[in-house]
Amino acid sequence: MEKGVLVTQFKANAGSNGSSDTLSRDEFHSLVTSELRNFIKNAADPAAIDQLMSSLNKNNDGELNFLEFWLLIGHLASKHGGFSL
Amino acid sequence: MEKGVLVTQFKANAGSNGSSDTLSRDEFHSLVTSELRNFIKNAADPAAIDQLMSSLNKNNDGELNFLEFWLLIGHLASKHGGFSL
Repeated sequence: MEKGVLVTQFKANAGSNGSSDTLSRDEFHSLVTSELRNFIKNAADPAAIDQLMSSLNKNNDGELNFLEFWLLIGHLASKHGGFSL
Repeated sequence: MEKGVLVTQFKANAGSNGSSDTLSRDEFHSLVTSELRNFIKNAADPAAIDQLMSSLNKNNDGELNFLEFWLLIGHLASKHGGFSL
């Protein structure tokens, strides 16, 4: 299975600063603009990315851990996979 | 991103019987034994797979939708990615 690519991209961005297990605000912005801009509405609008990040950040620690990031990808995949949830 | 492979594998298994948006018990068993047996403990034990399925089945409808399946893959990916959560 190709989940390795997603793990690799998460690690590449999470490692820039602070904990390499989580995405800081800046790391998340750079990951969205470099990898997800075709999948996320208003990906060019920093305020929209901030809002997306806070909706994903279940434990409100200001960072996204791998599973919080993974759930975002799941929602995008299910939208593009045409699943009715 | 390679999330397409995961969507494809979900759809291939979900389409066997009943709704093609969800995995029935049999479809989940066949997906685990064919695709995930190297990643899931006791993948050869039907009772263990049943237990795994019920732990994932948040809405208790006896089926797994795409996001419930996706969260399983996220947990496996994070374990293999060596993330501390």
